[in-house]
Amino acid sequence: MNIKGFTFSAVEAAIKKPGRKDLALIVSDVPAVAAAVFTTSAVKAAPVLLSAERIAGGTAQALLVNSGNANACTGDNGMTVARETSRLVAEGLGISPDLLQVSSTGVIGVQMPLDRFTAAIPALIDGRASGTFDDVAAAIMTTDTFAKMETGSGEAGGVGYTVAGIAKGAGMIMPNMATMLSFIITDAAVEPEFLQQAFRRAVDVSFNAITVDGDMSTNDTCLIMANGMAGNPDITEGSAEGNAFAVILNTVLLSLAQQIVRDGEGATKFVEIRITGAASDADAKRAALAIANSSLVKTAFFGQDANWGRIFAAVGYSGAEVDQTRLSLSFDDVCMARNGVFAGDDAEARGTAVLKQKEFTVSVDLGIGSGTATMYTSDLTHAYISINADYRS
Amino acid sequence: MNIKGFTFSAVEAAIKKPGRKDLALIVSDVPAVAAAVFTTSAVKAAPVLLSAERIAGGTAQALLVNSGNANACTGDNGMTVARETSRLVAEGLGISPDLLQVSSTGVIGVQMPLDRFTAAIPALIDGRASGTFDDVAAAIMTTDTFAKMETGSGEAGGVGYTVAGIAKGAGMIMPNMATMLSFIITDAAVEPEFLQQAFRRAVDVSFNAITVDGDMSTNDTCLIMANGMAGNPDITEGSAEGNAFAVILNTVLLSLAQQIVRDGEGATKFVEIRITGAASDADAKRAALAIANSSLVKTAFFGQDANWGRIFAAVGYSGAEVDQTRLSLSFDDVCMARNGVFAGDDAEARGTAVLKQKEFTVSVDLGIGSGTATMYTSDLTHAYISINADYRS
Repeated sequence: MNIKGFTFSAVEAAIKKPGRKDLALIVSDVPAVAAAVFTTSAVKAAPVLLSAERIAGGTAQALLVNSGNANACTGDNGMTVARETSRLVAEGLGISPDLLQVSSTGVIGVQMPLDRFTAAIPALIDGRASGTFDDVAAAIMTTDTFAKMETGSGEAGGVGYTVAGIAKGAGMIMPNMATMLSFIITDAAVEPEFLQQAFRRAVDVSFNAITVDGDMSTNDTCLIMANGMAGNPDITEGSAEGNAFAVILNTVLLSLAQQIVRDGEGATKFVEIRITGAASDADAKRAALAIANSSLVKTAFFGQDANWGRIFAAVGYSGAEVDQTRLSLSFDDVCMARNGVFAGDDAEARGTAVLKQKEFTVSVDLGIGSGTATMYTSDLTHAYISINADYRS
Repeated sequence: MNIKGFTFSAVEAAIKKPGRKDLALIVSDVPAVAAAVFTTSAVKAAPVLLSAERIAGGTAQALLVNSGNANACTGDNGMTVARETSRLVAEGLGISPDLLQVSSTGVIGVQMPLDRFTAAIPALIDGRASGTFDDVAAAIMTTDTFAKMETGSGEAGGVGYTVAGIAKGAGMIMPNMATMLSFIITDAAVEPEFLQQAFRRAVDVSFNAITVDGDMSTNDTCLIMANGMAGNPDITEGSAEGNAFAVILNTVLLSLAQQIVRDGEGATKFVEIRITGAASDADAKRAALAIANSSLVKTAFFGQDANWGRIFAAVGYSGAEVDQTRLSLSFDDVCMARNGVFAGDDAEARGTAVLKQKEFTVSVDLGIGSGTATMYTSDLTHAYISINADYRS
C-alpha cells in the first residue's frame, strides 16, 4: 500500500485464545490531524473515555488497539490499565501519551490483564519494521470471518495521496454505531476543521446507516488520522479538491460499513433498505431502521419468504408518519404492493426469486413527502443464535 | 366456567390449514359495557379500524374472530369483507352490527376469502348450543403451542361474579402491544367509565409490559365485555369493591400476558426484568425495554451465559439517564455487578446456575432515583428463527 509515513505492528499478547494476534499498533511518523466518533451509549469503555479526552485537541500520532477484552464495565481499574498501557507504548515510541489513541473490543466486564500487555509491548514496538495494515486488520477481528479493508486515492495540488481504512464488526452493529471499530489513515494534508466535518458526514451515511442486530456497544470507535506526509497543499472545504476528498472518504467508509453487514454474525443476505416519499428525512430513517431491525422481517429474509406484510407492519410501528393507503413496496424491481395492498399477479413468484439472491434491495415509498433514507442490513439466522449463545465460552 | 349470560362457538372455516378451527364467536345475552385497546401502529388491519369505530360508544354484545388471515394491508376490499361478515353474523344473531366486534389474526396482505365465512356462519351461530370459551381460545391460536386462559372471581354487594379471559400471542409481541389478541368477559355489572380506566391500567402493566421480539402487529386487540348478568350493583371507582375488581382484572391480564411470553416463539426461558433506581418510571421502562429486546441479551439467556456486560451495554444505549459507576445487577439473588463492575468471587458460577433455570429475574438498579419498571421477556432461540423463516409456508 502506497501510503506515506505510517508503520504498523501486530502481536500475540494472549488476551484472546492462543494462536491469534490480538494487540496492534498504528504509528504515524509525525503528529497527524485527527478526528474520531465514539459510541453514544451512556455506558462507555475505559479506552473510549480516555481517547475521547485525548482527541479533543484534534491531533493524534498513534493507535494502540486490542481484541479479546473490551475493558468496559471495569471501573477505575479499567481506566488505570488503559492509562498504563498507553504510557508504556508512548514511552516506547518516544511520543506524548496524549498523542496515543487506545481502543479495545471483546468481552465486557472482565478486567484487562495488564501483565500481558506489559510483556507484549516491546515486541509490538519492534514489529513495526515489518508489520502491515493488513496485520492490524486481522488482529482486531473478534467474531468477524474476514478482515475488512478498503483504500482510495486522489490528487491535490498535483500530489497524489491515499486514504486507507480497516474495520471490524460482526455483531452489536447498529446506528450510532456498533461494536464497530474502524481506523482510517491518509497521508493527505487536510485542513483540521474540514477533516472533522467530512469525516462526520461520511460516518453518518456509512457506519450510522447499518444494522445487524440493533445492539450498540460500549466501545464503538471510528478514528481518522491525516498525517500530511504526501506533501500536498492543505485540502479545504468547498474546493474541488475538498469535494473529491469527501467522495473518496465516503467511498472508503461505505465500503467498510457494507463489509461489516456482509459479515454480520451468521448473515446469509445483504439487504439495502431504501425509503422514499417520507414526510421528512428523519421519518425516512425511522422507517428504514424499523425494517432493518425487525426480527420478523430479518427471519423472513433468511427464509427467502416474500412476506411484504411484515415490512409494512414494521413501517407502521416505526413512528414515521404513515398513510397505509399510500404505501408501496418493491423487492429490486418487482413491485410487491401498491397503495397499501398486494400488487397481485406474478408478484409473489417474482418477489420470491429476488429474495433467493444473496443481495437485494427493499424499496418502500411512503407516498407522502420527499424524505429519503438508505440503510443496510442482514438477515437473522440460526448461525447468529449459535454465535451469540456461545460467544464467551 | 360459572359465568352468566355468555355463549361461545368455534368452527372450521378453512381459512387456515384443514383440521383446525379458525372462526369463533363470543355472544353476550344482552348488550355489555365494553372497552378495547388496539394496536398503536399506523398500519392497522381492517377489523381494527371497524371495531375501533364501533366501540367508541362503549357497548358491545358479541365478538367474531378468525385466525389464518389478518385482513391487514387488504385495502378497501378488506374493509368490505370485514363489514360484510359482521353484517351476516349480526343478522344471524338478531343484533345490530354496531354491537359486533371483529378481530383477525394471521398472515398480512392476503385478501380474506368471504365465501368461506359465508359458508361457515350458519354452523358458527348454531354452535353456541354446545361451544365453550376454551373452544374460542383454541380457535384463535396461530403459532401458539397452547391455548391461554385465566379466570378470577369476586363479589360485589354480596353477589358473586367471574372474570375470564383468553389470549393468543407467540410472535410479534411487544409493548403497545403485539399480534396479541385477548378477550376478557365478565358477568359483573361495572360502571362504564371505571371499566375503561381499570382496563387500560391493567393492560399497561400486563400486555404492555411484555416483549418477545420487539415487533408490533397491525391487529393487536384487547377487548373486555361486562354484561352485568351476575346481578350485582354497579362496581364503581374508588370503592373497596372497585379496588377488588381492579386487582382481579390485573391478575387475569397479567397471567395471560405471562402465558404469552412463556409461549413466545421458540422460547425456552421466562425472564422478569426489574428496573429500580431510575431517574423516572419512564427511564426505568426505557432500560427494561432495551434489555428485554436486545438480541444479544436474549441469545445469552438461551446460551445460559451469565454475560451481564451485554445487559449493561443495553442499559447504556436505552436512552435512560445512566451513571455507569452506579449500576448494579443481579440474577435472582446473585449479585453479578456492583457500582458498574463485576461483583467477583463466585458470582460467575452462581449466576450461571440461575440462568440454567427455566425462569429467573434480572434486576438492575440504576442508583440514581426512584423510578421503577417491570417487564417480561423470553430468550431468542433457533426455534424462533425456524418458526418465522417458515411461517407462511
